[in-house]
Amino acid sequence: MSELTQVTVIKTANIYFDGLVTSRTVICADGSRKTLGIMQPGEFEFNTQAAEVMEILSGELTVQLPGEDGWRSVQGGESFAVPANAKFTMRVARLTDYCCSFLP
Amino acid sequence: MSELTQVTVIKTANIYFDGLVTSRTVICADGSRKTLGIMQPGEFEFNTQAAEVMEILSGELTVQLPGEDGWRSVQGGESFAVPANAKFTMRVARLTDYCCSFLP
Repeated sequence: MSELTQVTVIKTANIYFDGLVTSRTVICADGSRKTLGIMQPGEFEFNTQAAEVMEILSGELTVQLPGEDGWRSVQGGESFAVPANAKFTMRVARLTDYCCSFLP
Repeated sequence: MSELTQVTVIKTANIYFDGLVTSRTVICADGSRKTLGIMQPGEFEFNTQAAEVMEILSGELTVQLPGEDGWRSVQGGESFAVPANAKFTMRVARLTDYCCSFLP
């Protein structure tokens, strides 16, 4: 079972879209940040500050990434990257568990 | 902002009731375990193994605890304890963010 060790977790959840998307912030030993989150089905547009890698742990969605016209299908076990200062949209078809890693 | 430091987090979420209740398991430096979770509105019955303290970080629910006939109202900032090997039911009125600490 994959673990994040020697980390700090912010107790309070991050809550977006009336709770349809929620996450916990994890600060790693090297100072890098991740969020571990759950998305209920729905369509969600996010804006990035830092670049990030979205690792889908389980679930099913399509994503429209910056500069792409189409929608990319993503399932549990797959990942995608989003550049900094960008906008992207996810259409979540099934409850989705994710780990988002913010890049330095 | 309250933090849990020097902990291990299991990456994969715990998912209950078709995702209406989800949590992440945190293992503290002393070996004790907590879960940080989100409950969508609904009614949920849980069975405990270890005794636990449920700290409600935000949200609103009523709980029926073992040996109590009535329902107790609980809001963000409040906690309640559940004995080991017991059954309890929560009626979540508003999206609820919680920290559950399992007692040794």
